[in-house]
Amino acid sequence: MNKPHDFADILSVVHDVTEKIPFNQVLGLTVESLDLDHPTVRLSMQEQLIGNFIRGSLHGGVISSTLDFMGGLVAFLSVLKSLQGQPLQAMAERFARIGTIDLRVDYLRPGIGRHFIATGYVLRTGKKVSVTRMELHNDERQLIAVGTGAYTVA
Amino acid sequence: MNKPHDFADILSVVHDVTEKIPFNQVLGLTVESLDLDHPTVRLSMQEQLIGNFIRGSLHGGVISSTLDFMGGLVAFLSVLKSLQGQPLQAMAERFARIGTIDLRVDYLRPGIGRHFIATGYVLRTGKKVSVTRMELHNDERQLIAVGTGAYTVA
Amino acid sequence: MNKPHDFADILSVVHDVTEKIPFNQVLGLTVESLDLDHPTVRLSMQEQLIGNFIRGSLHGGVISSTLDFMGGLVAFLSVLKSLQGQPLQAMAERFARIGTIDLRVDYLRPGIGRHFIATGYVLRTGKKVSVTRMELHNDERQLIAVGTGAYTVA
Amino acid sequence: MNKPHDFADILSVVHDVTEKIPFNQVLGLTVESLDLDHPTVRLSMQEQLIGNFIRGSLHGGVISSTLDFMGGLVAFLSVLKSLQGQPLQAMAERFARIGTIDLRVDYLRPGIGRHFIATGYVLRTGKKVSVTRMELHNDERQLIAVGTGAYTVA
Repeated sequence: MNKPHDFADILSVVHDVTEKIPFNQVLGLTVESLDLDHPTVRLSMQEQLIGNFIRGSLHGGVISSTLDFMGGLVAFLSVLKSLQGQPLQAMAERFARIGTIDLRVDYLRPGIGRHFIATGYVLRTGKKVSVTRMELHNDERQLIAVGTGAYTVA
Repeated sequence: MNKPHDFADILSVVHDVTEKIPFNQVLGLTVESLDLDHPTVRLSMQEQLIGNFIRGSLHGGVISSTLDFMGGLVAFLSVLKSLQGQPLQAMAERFARIGTIDLRVDYLRPGIGRHFIATGYVLRTGKKVSVTRMELHNDERQLIAVGTGAYTVA
Repeated sequence: MNKPHDFADILSVVHDVTEKIPFNQVLGLTVESLDLDHPTVRLSMQEQLIGNFIRGSLHGGVISSTLDFMGGLVAFLSVLKSLQGQPLQAMAERFARIGTIDLRVDYLRPGIGRHFIATGYVLRTGKKVSVTRMELHNDERQLIAVGTGAYTVA
Repeated sequence: MNKPHDFADILSVVHDVTEKIPFNQVLGLTVESLDLDHPTVRLSMQEQLIGNFIRGSLHGGVISSTLDFMGGLVAFLSVLKSLQGQPLQAMAERFARIGTIDLRVDYLRPGIGRHFIATGYVLRTGKKVSVTRMELHNDERQLIAVGTGAYTVA
């Protein structure tokens, strides 16, 4: 039996996978914290992410992309325990294979800010499906959008 | 009273607004047809739009961005009649101001293809809210994803 | 190997299960057609199903209950082929075990009418999950509400 | 200008409207607390509310009906301040007129229990639309289902 990986190793796997996803690079998504109770992902405002050029606010698709990534991340963290002892490569593949079944996003306020923080948590993880809730705040701690998603984790 | 605009003028407004949206340029979204009964938006595969690097498929956020844009477009087309006789500038502002209240996306198959076509239609447009359904097919006519959205049109 | 069941037998199983569900009896749901391409479920207006006593329209929950049942029904029909040759009892249990993962309902018009017809179809059925779209019309063929649901079929 | 109503009066209006809704009586929904920060609605298990007769669990439609009512209630409470000084009859009509635009329900665990408590809160209330989150727990404090809804409040 392999010895359990250091948390630092797992963190490093998640960072690697996150950054290997081409569209995450376009968005500039970075995993800020993998605290199991309060993971956070950061999105910095860029000119090219604007959807409403009158208000200078984020495109709705940038918001849903970020919340979708956050949902997949917390779904992955919820199955991490069951992966203890597996090679890091297997963990990375498992993370990369998590799939979104469906996602609802509620747009509450215009996405205006210098940067944005996504958070999320798992409502329930079963054998096949994980259901998650996500939130996006701007740098003034205003709630910009929320999401709920179902993800395959099998 | 102004005389009604030629449809070509309106088409041109929609194209202008679509292309002025910075994130639409990142995605490479183009309005292919404004046929009122069957408008279509085209998305071409690009390396940077990939979300799953094992399968080479579109990022879920690219899919939701495209369906969200399509939903806003059909919501706009549904209020177009009520804008007859208004200056083109007013139409452009109205289009740019349409806001997504919420959006559900169902991911049915991996977003694999050379290009993708989004279609959509309005389920109902009231005084304040328009509810729309959208679909995304790849170039082999496989249904990749569907969406349902509520948009403010007031 | 068992010989395939007559369609009439399967129809009878679905009717039995539908009617054995206590809350379906409260709603008065009846399976009107199991045509695989166009199954229909009927709901008759009753005083006790009213949600808005000013307008005399259906409670939103009656609408979502009906659409949810319809979604489960079309999900079941989509796995029926794979059940060919199994005992009717196994089919009945499979139908009864189909579970809703999540459901979105869009309420388009007040639920006013003498009776209502729910229809539905499968967008995609995979090994574990079936995704369906449903619609509810009144007896004047007005579209009252639509739904999208994800169901476990494994 | 009328003097502000006692909170007890408003509570009484909400109870009256809740109980005048025929389908709420079928469900047996009762408003347990109108604490503005933590309103609760109670649902007692009854034989006729069962959807899965193998497990004896609530019909999904009972769950969505309860969450939908809860969402409308918190949406109403969020506009209550703006109704200060209006006659109680006007408040009752306003409550009865709140409409669900759309609702998503995620079914997390079988609805098994002796009774169930729905809670909810507003994510944002604008001039026209209120967006709410709702939860349903059983009497053992297990989370059975969650919902997100958009309601017209104008």
